Amino acid sequence: MSASPEIVTAAVLVIGDEILSGRTKDKNIGTIAEMCTAVGIDLKEVRVVADDEPAIVEAIEVLRSRYTYVFTTGGIGPTHDDITADCVAKAFAVPLDVHPDAVAILKERLAKTGGELNEARLRMARIPRGAVLVANKISGAPGFWIGNVITMAGIPAVMQSMMEEVLPKLKTGVKLLSESVRADAKEGDVGTELGVIAKAHPETIIGSYPFFDARGPNTNIVVRARDPQKLAAAKAAVERMLTEIRARLGG
Amino acid sequence: MSASPEIVTAAVLVIGDEILSGRTKDKNIGTIAEMCTAVGIDLKEVRVVADDEPAIVEAIEVLRSRYTYVFTTGGIGPTHDDITADCVAKAFAVPLDVHPDAVAILKERLAKTGGELNEARLRMARIPRGAVLVANKISGAPGFWIGNVITMAGIPAVMQSMMEEVLPKLKTGVKLLSESVRADAKEGDVGTELGVIAKAHPETIIGSYPFFDARGPNTNIVVRARDPQKLAAAKAAVERMLTEIRARLGG
Repeated sequence: MSASPEIVTAAVLVIGDEILSGRTKDKNIGTIAEMCTAVGIDLKEVRVVADDEPAIVEAIEVLRSRYTYVFTTGGIGPTHDDITADCVAKAFAVPLDVHPDAVAILKERLAKTGGELNEARLRMARIPRGAVLVANKISGAPGFWIGNVITMAGIPAVMQSMMEEVLPKLKTGVKLLSESVRADAKEGDVGTELGVIAKAHPETIIGSYPFFDARGPNTNIVVRARDPQKLAAAKAAVERMLTEIRARLGG
Repeated sequence: MSASPEIVTAAVLVIGDEILSGRTKDKNIGTIAEMCTAVGIDLKEVRVVADDEPAIVEAIEVLRSRYTYVFTTGGIGPTHDDITADCVAKAFAVPLDVHPDAVAILKERLAKTGGELNEARLRMARIPRGAVLVANKISGAPGFWIGNVITMAGIPAVMQSMMEEVLPKLKTGVKLLSESVRADAKEGDVGTELGVIAKAHPETIIGSYPFFDARGPNTNIVVRARDPQKLAAAKAAVERMLTEIRARLGG
């Protein structure tokens, strides 16, 4: 049963010069964030680093010591700048072996698509010793899972399919429930009172997110909690406060 | 003159539970990355952390000691969960004062839009002592710049206007030039030879980015260098290699 009260946490490590140069816009952070939230895993931190071994190794070491899971994206392709597998192996101090099952997967894929299993493609079969493969239903070349680190591709469709593969096997915590209330008021008009409500409801997380709509500045207030009764109580307090403030400002 | 050969680096610190929950999809990382690249500032690292004081303070301290500039986004609004100014003040060990110029800006704005300068809105005038304000042409409430840390809003339009305000005042390095070549080949077919070229052109950065088009898997090869002649030489080597490989595979 996964109904334990344990808090399960995660970090994402995005690897790739192309994100830091702005050439490629990351889509994986948002996808992983949503998928984690949906199953009760708290995403606590994201880092984006370059294709640079010391930076990647350091980030893996720090993040894996702090969080239940670390999801990495990017850097597992066939070219010289794909060094994520090397870095994960280094962080775990294990050899990077050519994995026979990964070779078999690549061969099967190439039999369909054409192309030779050359030196470059064989890079994608190098897996840190002790890792299990993560299937890639989109393009064959697998990700892998070692310790609490799950290494996935950077291409969003491939990353998502790997995440779907892995997600049912992860420990999950008590889901953080969420309710959203549109304030129909400016953030600055509700901020003081919202802070009072947040203090009075310590086991909830109350966030305030300004946006613009056709009538001008508006605010979404999001209340989150693991306990549905505490969530409902905080939401009710927010709604009472909003009714009072709108009456005062409108009057 | 800014034509020194200095390498100017930067990090982005995105602050906000809403990014980590997946509720809001970050757009600021890509914008800042593009803007930095355009002026020759190397974005080296990005971190996303929650609205959590110890996490924010630690990230500011680490990043500001490592990089020329740190850009923070998010957490400078009027509500209790907007704690970025508090955290920057803590990281710099300075008091967080109500800044008279920030108060004047808020008053001027409220005179136009309506609304009172209440306790919540006054939060937005709390500026770490010694910081200079960063103008916000969109919605008034300013960002600020202290030491090498530039604190901006999270709303993308506001962040961008603050970044435009700040960018002309930053040190900039020698711009990293970039050329992109479409391989018209699969990444796995060019990876080995591309690695050889990368080794032979050490002052360039050669990246390989697979994508799918109507004809199937394809690859963009991006060559980057600060020296235009080294860039041209590496690009020419890539193009020769691609011509040879396409002839071999097509033959």
